[in-house]
Amino acid sequence: MTHSAIAPPSIAEIARSVRGGAVSARLLAEDAIARHNVGELNAYIVFDAEGALAQADAIDAAVARGVDPGPLAGITVSVKDLYGVEGLPIQAGTRRELPERWQREGFLVRALRDLGAVIVGKTHTVELAFGGVGMNPNTGTPVNPWDPVEHRAPGGSSSGAGVSLWEGSALIALGSDTGGSVRIPAAATGVVGHRHTTGRWPTTGVVPLSTTLDTVGILTRTAADSRHVFALVDALAGKSMAGRTTSRHPLPGEAHPSPVRDLAGLRIGVPREGIWHGVQADIVAVLDRTLAELEAAGAELVEFRAPELREAGERYLDGILVQPERFESLERDLPGFGKVLDDTVGKRLEGAPAVSAVDYIGVLRLRRRLSARLQDRMARDGIELLAAPTLPLTPPTLASIAELESYRAVNRAMLSRTGPASMLDMCAVSLPAGLDDADMPVGLQLIGRSHADHALLDRAVAVERVLGTNLERLGAPPRIRSALPAG
Amino acid sequence: MTHSAIAPPSIAEIARSVRGGAVSARLLAEDAIARHNVGELNAYIVFDAEGALAQADAIDAAVARGVDPGPLAGITVSVKDLYGVEGLPIQAGTRRELPERWQREGFLVRALRDLGAVIVGKTHTVELAFGGVGMNPNTGTPVNPWDPVEHRAPGGSSSGAGVSLWEGSALIALGSDTGGSVRIPAAATGVVGHRHTTGRWPTTGVVPLSTTLDTVGILTRTAADSRHVFALVDALAGKSMAGRTTSRHPLPGEAHPSPVRDLAGLRIGVPREGIWHGVQADIVAVLDRTLAELEAAGAELVEFRAPELREAGERYLDGILVQPERFESLERDLPGFGKVLDDTVGKRLEGAPAVSAVDYIGVLRLRRRLSARLQDRMARDGIELLAAPTLPLTPPTLASIAELESYRAVNRAMLSRTGPASMLDMCAVSLPAGLDDADMPVGLQLIGRSHADHALLDRAVAVERVLGTNLERLGAPPRIRSALPAG
Repeated sequence: MTHSAIAPPSIAEIARSVRGGAVSARLLAEDAIARHNVGELNAYIVFDAEGALAQADAIDAAVARGVDPGPLAGITVSVKDLYGVEGLPIQAGTRRELPERWQREGFLVRALRDLGAVIVGKTHTVELAFGGVGMNPNTGTPVNPWDPVEHRAPGGSSSGAGVSLWEGSALIALGSDTGGSVRIPAAATGVVGHRHTTGRWPTTGVVPLSTTLDTVGILTRTAADSRHVFALVDALAGKSMAGRTTSRHPLPGEAHPSPVRDLAGLRIGVPREGIWHGVQADIVAVLDRTLAELEAAGAELVEFRAPELREAGERYLDGILVQPERFESLERDLPGFGKVLDDTVGKRLEGAPAVSAVDYIGVLRLRRRLSARLQDRMARDGIELLAAPTLPLTPPTLASIAELESYRAVNRAMLSRTGPASMLDMCAVSLPAGLDDADMPVGLQLIGRSHADHALLDRAVAVERVLGTNLERLGAPPRIRSALPAG
Repeated sequence: MTHSAIAPPSIAEIARSVRGGAVSARLLAEDAIARHNVGELNAYIVFDAEGALAQADAIDAAVARGVDPGPLAGITVSVKDLYGVEGLPIQAGTRRELPERWQREGFLVRALRDLGAVIVGKTHTVELAFGGVGMNPNTGTPVNPWDPVEHRAPGGSSSGAGVSLWEGSALIALGSDTGGSVRIPAAATGVVGHRHTTGRWPTTGVVPLSTTLDTVGILTRTAADSRHVFALVDALAGKSMAGRTTSRHPLPGEAHPSPVRDLAGLRIGVPREGIWHGVQADIVAVLDRTLAELEAAGAELVEFRAPELREAGERYLDGILVQPERFESLERDLPGFGKVLDDTVGKRLEGAPAVSAVDYIGVLRLRRRLSARLQDRMARDGIELLAAPTLPLTPPTLASIAELESYRAVNRAMLSRTGPASMLDMCAVSLPAGLDDADMPVGLQLIGRSHADHALLDRAVAVERVLGTNLERLGAPPRIRSALPAG
């Protein structure tokens, strides 16, 4: 493939231009503002053009003074409305604004600011992040840009994240991933989403869903961008975890990650009988072709039994872990909000009070045991990554899930292939693999062992070099093509 | 006080003699065997004289070959029958022998073997370690050596531990502390017991009670011994936690802890209105005199509000955390044992299945919040340790708790002052403070901040230098005096 001709500049390149004074942060912010909502895709609940320009001007002023604004200088960021951003209202997908203390910024927002990034606004989220479809009857459902006619779900719960990347109002989109909420919208909209190993970055400043499984994280246009930003933020997380705050640190320089590896020596386990079972045939076909390309490029594909993935996924979906955590958090953190939830979320919590502590403890123990068993076997068999579909079905039209019952069935299906890595404390990335029979994006999920995040992203970049970036492999989505003919 | 004349040799001194060949491990083992059950106090469920001699001979042989047997060479150890010891049956206080896999040795037993210690046998435990009194209707209740006439409870759940130290069949006694099971028997029998910060040492090879609160740990005759052994084992735990096993490590040399601090600059918070409330008046009087001695020796006593201790203690006792964990573990780890439990344990589990996951999660969250609040205030006010009673009452006679209802009330009372530090992930030590009006030992509990274990034991040794060791301060227990007139 010769796709490098259309590769957009990377985040590293753009920030380098801003730091060097070749491009102003203001220009980038103005470009983001111009692109905001071009296709009327409704990615944002709040867009802060004024704030973005002010942040950009501060960065340009620093450059003018000879002060380094940081390795993500001027890079635009959309923030899921589950995160606090000072001065911007937060609704977390509910019908009401949350108390002001939820505007407080936590680790990831502060880390990005410290690195020189520019926050442009808050993107839509599923109500309290509790769902994988991306639909939100309270605040609105962003439009998936890949279907030129129908309103298809953008994937959730970080439902505006992928859309913001395509329209170009942001180069980094913040999501959060409990059971798949970064990977699912990445797959549904054809961008890259990485769930790091649970506990790697603090989840401060974000409305909690599950104390056990919550992670914060980013979506980007390319794996190279994901790898670059992850390395920069992760360096700060190590310091922050050691009990210091990021803002007191000297800024790290440009990240110099180790050279990207190619696919040589990469053994990918393909657990056909479990997590692949029941996936839409056209999606399997796209992924099979994709894996064959990786094999041709030097990766080794290995049939690998991983029944733990399926079992972990089932335990995720039966709600014994997350539903009581969600319920407890709601009562403590957001008293009164339980009563105003939409049925798509509220009905799923009705069973929570009846879950017994004994069953809950049993699931916590089971997931540790399953994780140890699977990861031991991967280590013994020299399997570095597992390949799986990110989604087993085409992102649905909203019309097809208007009834609560069909919504719930589709929601379960959409979470069914990402829940496992969450439950097993593994890390995973979703990469665009192609388009299915409905011309909607298909995500290839690569799952790595606990805390192998850097290695996972190294391999993801190598995979991307074979497959091409999203724009190279999929082209631009129809609704973006028509809105940005020059795009 | 001039008490040093009667101080017995320390573990460090004894091991040094064995390593240097001045005393044979066999002599120490024979002495332990001779002392076993001298007062017919029934500390052990299994005593392994033959095994102890074999281990001792191996150590002497090593010394003869010029091989260093380790810094705890020849030191005798009694092991609570909740731990696996290869080749010795394990019953964990139940009516039945446990499956053989429970004989497998975990971290602490292996660490002590690696350090050169000699296992002499298994001491009695409360059934499945689920109780603080020390009574066990299945396998027997060791006799508290301090009451010359009545059979008084030895404290639990490590009920044989303190007794084994007094009779001299062991110099280290292994216990386990979930809500106080090391500190309580230490207080009730007049020895030293240290609960380290939760998670510090692996709990492998021990029948679990609570995944959240379980710790393994040791009782010794003196604080100096506790400090010495803790430093040696803790060095191995650091390595073991990093994923390696202790047995592959080079043996550490003699520990060279930093010089013991005196009491200068020690600010002790005394939370009178909470955890001190409702304590037997004669016990309060003993502790008040003890604290006054510490003050005279240079410590500063500070009135300090710590309502978190009381709240944490109440949450411990209401069972929402531990009972479902106990129940779940029983079902998974010991199927069938739930049916054969004595009422003293089984009845306490009847409510476990009805505990909701939401309430359980709420308690987990509450304990984190209480801990943060209390420890923050200690830090801000420069409070290094909190002083509290270990037990609020005289160890009861078995006759007084023959009825289930009175047993349960006393059991709750006995756990009420140790549960708080467990719930708050703090570390704590119980030291002998004096004798109450019934001539039974009173324990002074010193509670330190999370992971301040070394500092806590440094201060405990300084406290012991002021108060005298147990033998110096309390004398020998009547049942030991009469059994070992030369003792």
